[in-house]
Amino acid sequence: MAITVVGSVAYDSIETPAGRRERCLGGAATYFSLSASFFTDVRVIAVVGEDFGPEQEAVLTRRKIDTRGIERAAGKSFFWEGSYMENLNEAKTHKTDLNVFASFQPKIPDAYRDSEFLFLANIDPVLQRRVREAMPGVKLVAGDTMNYWIKDHRPALLEVLKGLDILLINDTETRMLAGNSNLVQAARKVLTFGPRMLIVKHGEYGSTLFHKSIPQGQISETFRAPAFPLEEVVDPTGAGDSFAGGFFGYLASQPELTPDAFRRAMFYGGVMGSFTVECFGTDRLQQLSRAEIDHRFQLFRELTHLD
Amino acid sequence: MAITVVGSVAYDSIETPAGRRERCLGGAATYFSLSASFFTDVRVIAVVGEDFGPEQEAVLTRRKIDTRGIERAAGKSFFWEGSYMENLNEAKTHKTDLNVFASFQPKIPDAYRDSEFLFLANIDPVLQRRVREAMPGVKLVAGDTMNYWIKDHRPALLEVLKGLDILLINDTETRMLAGNSNLVQAARKVLTFGPRMLIVKHGEYGSTLFHKSIPQGQISETFRAPAFPLEEVVDPTGAGDSFAGGFFGYLASQPELTPDAFRRAMFYGGVMGSFTVECFGTDRLQQLSRAEIDHRFQLFRELTHLD
Repeated sequence: MAITVVGSVAYDSIETPAGRRERCLGGAATYFSLSASFFTDVRVIAVVGEDFGPEQEAVLTRRKIDTRGIERAAGKSFFWEGSYMENLNEAKTHKTDLNVFASFQPKIPDAYRDSEFLFLANIDPVLQRRVREAMPGVKLVAGDTMNYWIKDHRPALLEVLKGLDILLINDTETRMLAGNSNLVQAARKVLTFGPRMLIVKHGEYGSTLFHKSIPQGQISETFRAPAFPLEEVVDPTGAGDSFAGGFFGYLASQPELTPDAFRRAMFYGGVMGSFTVECFGTDRLQQLSRAEIDHRFQLFRELTHLD
Repeated sequence: MAITVVGSVAYDSIETPAGRRERCLGGAATYFSLSASFFTDVRVIAVVGEDFGPEQEAVLTRRKIDTRGIERAAGKSFFWEGSYMENLNEAKTHKTDLNVFASFQPKIPDAYRDSEFLFLANIDPVLQRRVREAMPGVKLVAGDTMNYWIKDHRPALLEVLKGLDILLINDTETRMLAGNSNLVQAARKVLTFGPRMLIVKHGEYGSTLFHKSIPQGQISETFRAPAFPLEEVVDPTGAGDSFAGGFFGYLASQPELTPDAFRRAMFYGGVMGSFTVECFGTDRLQQLSRAEIDHRFQLFRELTHLD
């Protein structure tokens, strides 16, 4: 089944202990799409500026990603500059130029309307909601957000959450959204806001799936997937979006959304995140093969398997 | 097989968001012993002061722990006061009174000499080494340490590491000991210091077992066990020592030290840590049953099981 994703397609300048890269292709929708494209058809809704050329578009189209929903606007593409010099788990933002993104009004191509899966990447919740409402027929909706929207755009974000099946955020965002420092209590609270599943990403420690049906004091419907301990992390940018792409892409490829399919999807999410951080930007995702993905999935499984 | 453990038996005054407790029985050897006692025979080497009475001793002897190696000295027992008000993952130490521990000279009762397993809990590495050398016939030796010894007593600690089969420390300690912020690289470095296995405890995120034989760039011999997401953490004190007790106790109960036994031992470690934090001090360990332990082991397994 096809996924439509709305989010940013951007340029990133990134500094990490492994080096520095200027203006590499990035943005949540880019990482998500590339990652999900190994599992299913992906259609992107985004806006780019005049600096987005055929070379950048080919990164997506080579992976058969539908780019008809990427609007070209006068001006420059969204630009982000950040570094991870002290802590590979947390980016320090040096510059954010919204550019054409400041006036982004998502338009949904007719060819996208039969998408059965919808992913609302981390953008203004007002836009997330608009896209959600414009695609009422989708079967499964997942979304991401960040501290900025949680803190300063809470009412709009809460409206989005009502329309989500699955929310994917990290530990800090979960605690912030719930106003509770205990992760299980915070997860339970977030699940009262609308989504029936919450996936909390723990970075190098894996991820946890919480279900709405989780009874007080029980964890029987909780699932935890490990992350892959990596010898070298070159650039953490996009790991979370790659996780989301692997997770949602795998789900979209499944004939039935069984509990086991969700568990495997969590593993695939971790696998895709682990590839992304091996190189700068989307380099690793661009070179990846499905065979490598499935091989690493097996390593993941062995990593935590108990007879 | 019996385990001998050397470490602190102490009094702790603890403050957490759940409340405050004055002078509850604590110390690494206490938590370790109580935890391991659910799996195998445990013998303690420690020193206590005149404030350690029959009531405290009964906490150990009720669990059939051999206390003949607990020396009574003139003065007061080791005392620690700490809080976890801002962060349940890290204690803030307010007071440490070594008291009788300052002049502790471990003495090994003859009845302990046939122990096949030895655990060197977190104490001065000079004492750890002395006990290790006094028990050359043990089959498996594991140990713990902390930032203080890593920073200020490195040469003595490195001597201890040479005599260890398994080192159990947390993420921060691993990175500090290796002088490397990448966990896999740090683990590899620590394994060059002597131990053939390193278990890194990640707190609420579980633990990872690294083998000495891990080839460059490979993780095939790495194992990651999850932790249990808990609705309420009352008091994190002793979680790491309880992990060690569950891990080492389970191993000592096994007829053969197979890779699978090590994997299950990691799960049991996490299980025991998860019980300890549910109440103040050793309260939960004192009330625990083997049936509860095995039930939670099954929950742990389900938590990460992939068909």
